[in-house]
Amino acid sequence: MEQYQSLFYGLSFLVAAIAFAYAAYLYFWVKRQPITNGKIIEVAGLIKEGAKTFMRREYKILAIFASVVAVLILLFLPSPIWNGDFIDNISMALAYIAGTVLSAIAGKIGIMVASLSNGRSAEAAQKGIKPAFLIGFRGGAVMGLIVVGCSLFGVAAVLWIVGDASILLGFSFGASSLALFAKAGGGIFTKTADVSADLTGKVELGIPEDDPRNPAVIADNVGDNVGDVAGMGADLFDSNVAAMASAIVIAQSLSGTGYNNLSMVFCYSVLGLLSSIIGIATARIGKNGNPTRALNSSTYVTTAIYMILTAVATAFIPGFSWRIWGAATVGLLVGVIIGITTDYFTDDSKPIVKKVAHASQTGPAFTILSGVSYGFISALPAMVGIAISALAAYKICEPMGDGYAVFGISMAAVGMLSIVGMIISNDAYGPIVDNARGLAEMGDLGEDTIRIADELDSAGNTVKAVTKGFSISAAGLTVISLLGAFMSEVNTALAEAGKELITGFDIMDPTVFFGVLIGAVIPAVFSAMLILGVDKNAQRMVAEIHRQFNSIKGLREGTAKPEYDKCIDIATTGALRELIPAGLMTILVTILVGVIGGAKAVGGFLLGNIVSGLLLALFMSNAGGLWDNSKKYVEAGNEGGKGSKAHKAAVIGDTVGDPFKDTAGPSINTQITVVSLVASLLSGVFAMISIF
Amino acid sequence: MEQYQSLFYGLSFLVAAIAFAYAAYLYFWVKRQPITNGKIIEVAGLIKEGAKTFMRREYKILAIFASVVAVLILLFLPSPIWNGDFIDNISMALAYIAGTVLSAIAGKIGIMVASLSNGRSAEAAQKGIKPAFLIGFRGGAVMGLIVVGCSLFGVAAVLWIVGDASILLGFSFGASSLALFAKAGGGIFTKTADVSADLTGKVELGIPEDDPRNPAVIADNVGDNVGDVAGMGADLFDSNVAAMASAIVIAQSLSGTGYNNLSMVFCYSVLGLLSSIIGIATARIGKNGNPTRALNSSTYVTTAIYMILTAVATAFIPGFSWRIWGAATVGLLVGVIIGITTDYFTDDSKPIVKKVAHASQTGPAFTILSGVSYGFISALPAMVGIAISALAAYKICEPMGDGYAVFGISMAAVGMLSIVGMIISNDAYGPIVDNARGLAEMGDLGEDTIRIADELDSAGNTVKAVTKGFSISAAGLTVISLLGAFMSEVNTALAEAGKELITGFDIMDPTVFFGVLIGAVIPAVFSAMLILGVDKNAQRMVAEIHRQFNSIKGLREGTAKPEYDKCIDIATTGALRELIPAGLMTILVTILVGVIGGAKAVGGFLLGNIVSGLLLALFMSNAGGLWDNSKKYVEAGNEGGKGSKAHKAAVIGDTVGDPFKDTAGPSINTQITVVSLVASLLSGVFAMISIF
Repeated sequence: MEQYQSLFYGLSFLVAAIAFAYAAYLYFWVKRQPITNGKIIEVAGLIKEGAKTFMRREYKILAIFASVVAVLILLFLPSPIWNGDFIDNISMALAYIAGTVLSAIAGKIGIMVASLSNGRSAEAAQKGIKPAFLIGFRGGAVMGLIVVGCSLFGVAAVLWIVGDASILLGFSFGASSLALFAKAGGGIFTKTADVSADLTGKVELGIPEDDPRNPAVIADNVGDNVGDVAGMGADLFDSNVAAMASAIVIAQSLSGTGYNNLSMVFCYSVLGLLSSIIGIATARIGKNGNPTRALNSSTYVTTAIYMILTAVATAFIPGFSWRIWGAATVGLLVGVIIGITTDYFTDDSKPIVKKVAHASQTGPAFTILSGVSYGFISALPAMVGIAISALAAYKICEPMGDGYAVFGISMAAVGMLSIVGMIISNDAYGPIVDNARGLAEMGDLGEDTIRIADELDSAGNTVKAVTKGFSISAAGLTVISLLGAFMSEVNTALAEAGKELITGFDIMDPTVFFGVLIGAVIPAVFSAMLILGVDKNAQRMVAEIHRQFNSIKGLREGTAKPEYDKCIDIATTGALRELIPAGLMTILVTILVGVIGGAKAVGGFLLGNIVSGLLLALFMSNAGGLWDNSKKYVEAGNEGGKGSKAHKAAVIGDTVGDPFKDTAGPSINTQITVVSLVASLLSGVFAMISIF
Repeated sequence: MEQYQSLFYGLSFLVAAIAFAYAAYLYFWVKRQPITNGKIIEVAGLIKEGAKTFMRREYKILAIFASVVAVLILLFLPSPIWNGDFIDNISMALAYIAGTVLSAIAGKIGIMVASLSNGRSAEAAQKGIKPAFLIGFRGGAVMGLIVVGCSLFGVAAVLWIVGDASILLGFSFGASSLALFAKAGGGIFTKTADVSADLTGKVELGIPEDDPRNPAVIADNVGDNVGDVAGMGADLFDSNVAAMASAIVIAQSLSGTGYNNLSMVFCYSVLGLLSSIIGIATARIGKNGNPTRALNSSTYVTTAIYMILTAVATAFIPGFSWRIWGAATVGLLVGVIIGITTDYFTDDSKPIVKKVAHASQTGPAFTILSGVSYGFISALPAMVGIAISALAAYKICEPMGDGYAVFGISMAAVGMLSIVGMIISNDAYGPIVDNARGLAEMGDLGEDTIRIADELDSAGNTVKAVTKGFSISAAGLTVISLLGAFMSEVNTALAEAGKELITGFDIMDPTVFFGVLIGAVIPAVFSAMLILGVDKNAQRMVAEIHRQFNSIKGLREGTAKPEYDKCIDIATTGALRELIPAGLMTILVTILVGVIGGAKAVGGFLLGNIVSGLLLALFMSNAGGLWDNSKKYVEAGNEGGKGSKAHKAAVIGDTVGDPFKDTAGPSINTQITVVSLVASLLSGVFAMISIF
């Protein structure tokens, strides 16, 4: 074992415990805040119940799925149980289950605290922006702390118990499986509800957005929590675990080269969580403060603290290299820069949103065309940023010796994800205050309160664009390092079989090229399936809403209550039904490519998948955010304001953008990670089989 | 020189001459057909004039651009004039000019015959579908024969005179430069006119689509010819030349290995042109025949003849390998299969078009979302097809020895493009009968005639989808073989400098990876710039139309004539103004990546560019065709028919699809080829410089 390794296991457990304790403190702090308005209590209760229904159903299906996968792992991975090590197979199956369970727990807690915070934040807004902001932010922070605490604890525990890094890939795959369900399933759920509520409510019946007579309205509010709190949390849990796992796999292969690499991975992750705790604890807003600035400045504070703490650690702990510190810092800084450039394309005080709003004057086709165009262009800075950070990290660490260059890239990913606790806090803040805004309206809290709630909500939207850009980029760097992990796993298998090792994946090799082309088209097909899934599911839900209006007497007049749970039920079942073919398709194609072309084709496949996945994820997320904010910009009275021709066009843009930014775009992250992990896990099989 | 090489030079010139002679025969045959209706003669004359104006202006700007590039080539390529061979630089500059001039001539003739055919086809439709079809088809065939004749003649002449294959890359780059102007510039032109005519005419003034009072209406008709006849012709000229050039570069590097590879490239190209001539000569339609079937069956006839002729040649000519024949055949067959699958996504008798039309019932957002989704999915068969054909061609030819595998891929591209004469004929038929339909309406030729013209037009649209899928795939295979040509050029430069050769581009090498990420985002940014260009340019033209309606008295009433040429002028100048930044951006980024990362980064850059370019080109072309045909399907009386809610939504889908399928989508082909050729031409420079 490396020097200090036990120390850093200990520290990992300790800091994870601190994060849990602080999360518990914040949870109870939020719970202590007053909530008195009867209407708000009622609706918040319905949202909470709805979220629970979704989670329960989702986790049930997931449990079946995970059991099947766990049995398959037990039988076949890391190598078939009849010619491998029995203990290894059991370890990996258990690690896989641990990955799903920890992620599920984090999601569950996040949803709980979000449903606790929304109503309280709405009521607090009556007293001013300061207390309302704090409740929203601290509610989100619970999620952030739990997610990062669980990932650090999980990774450290698995490695401590098993000692073999490749088992960690099983843990990571568990996290990914859950993320696929939570993110893509949640994404379909939330947009199904949103679209159906809008279509039947606003369009057919002419009732306002959050009108309680609409049977889909609770499902719509639940959707925000399910997609953005639980989904985003699972997504970043997944990225964080995958980044650590691939860094650890590579670090273990570098053991005995004179550096304490493994300790460094844990040390940096521990310090990242510590920095996030400090950043969260110090987040404040002035009495008339700007919530966007408050959220962003906490991010910058966290970044600065992290850089200082890691520099100190690197200076004082023997066997830590400044080069690795450089790689991690490059990753983190590029992550922040990508966030800022993403903001440029989606912030309504910047020119692009205004341009798209202006184009809407000419009709919806121009809203779409300009949004698509700027969405494409918005991918440029992030792609260049990822390219430069990977190249820089590689070049910085290359002189340390063989294998260190790829380790540098994986540490850039770890660096970029170090402040993920802060990022999740900011992100989970969004749906909480979004819900709070709706509740303030339903609870008749008055115009001033709604204005404050609006301001908090708008900050949530702006920050969300930044965190999405950040999470896509982080996933990008992570899967690049997973590519490294894949090659090292393939070579382990080849070495065991006494075959010739592979030194890389040459694009002039047609099996690699074959893989690249197939890999590139998968994210496109995957997102198409999800978007079509939203469409199909919305049709089911619209039919249910029509049924309720036709069969429940007094519903239209507001004297009878709709059956909210039926809508939640449909959204849930449908979401999972639409998700499974898309998820299975990606996994089966990965296996198929591996069986046809062997490990080299899979290497190409991963590359194509990563590259086109990043491009499409950035395009869809940013175009969606852009359309959303253009609509809001028009609604604020520009280009003719509400009800104008431009507004109608902007609403169409927003409807197109919704499944782009909330269903397909952010699910592509997870799709890429799942595929990368499946490839790494099956590397032994791919290394042996190839039709060509 | 290879055995028989002189024979095949001779045959190339001979068959090119036959193609020219046959084209001349068809041209005069079309010209002999009667045209008597005064109104048709007038409008057809205006379209002809408009097309001439565009071509004149375009060629003027192109001449300046080409002169600058020619001087740069003279100074720097293949190596700086002060330390290279003076004659080589002159040869390459001249070859470059020859490439632009031959492509320009082909475009010019194509436009001439198209403007000759449209009115005559409209009048012939009075007599029935048979004569009207024949005029449209033969008009298109002139373009097909000239394009392929010119490319075969040009490639043979350059190689015969110079003897050095790398000079051919200069010729190919000339063809690409022109294609960029013709395709992207023409694409912006045609959509500017189309969008402006629709916005002012149909929307603001409530006058029908082809109303002669609209100042933009002639520009709109010109646009069809400029974009689809000249643009598509230049595009396929470019692909065809590039495919031959890269096959020849590789064949020359294989000389002395026992096969007559060079002869084989020429022989197969000669036979391809011969097969197209036979296919064109035998194209017929029954009295009540189906024009789509007639067009498709000529394609199948040509394919079959080509396979037989090449098999016979391979059997009887010494030094020809059956393996190469296999590679070429695989390429051709996959091309045909890709065409058929593309048809599935855009043909209105198939389910997808109906589904999108049905989704339009729910509103325009669903038209867009379903079209985007199916557009993404439609890329799958073509990408898989390209991947499989490249892999199969490689594997078939690999046993022949070192370097033959890549030669196999280039011969698959040559095979796929062998029937390009037939493809262009089918494609150019489209805008001719599209114009004929408009002219039949303007000339009051009666309902029966218009119905026949409609049927011909609809066949044109269906076949266009197939030919577009075909041309994108062919470009895909071509650029894969250009990647091979790039590597061989880089190694030549490295060998001359006494440096270590590169054996490939490993994706685990971060400079390669860096290139891949940047390369992948370029087609997205390039298409965004073109789409935004259409938007900007349309705004200028709408302003001009408003000016005319305000200042020309009697225009609204139909007593005064609009100034058609002003609109054509604006569309032309604007198109070129919007195109140049996009074109320069791609070239400069290529150079920048090369300077920063050297040859390896450029290799990755080309891969990323090809992969994401193919994906986006297929997505945009197919989604655009899908929306267009969905609109037509609704207009045919389905889902509520004309004027219904579904129709309004379908029109918005069509407007979004227009720049997708006619501007951005098909221009990406050319963008990829230009970048690949720039890279190959500058390979010597990139091999030497690299910041990292």
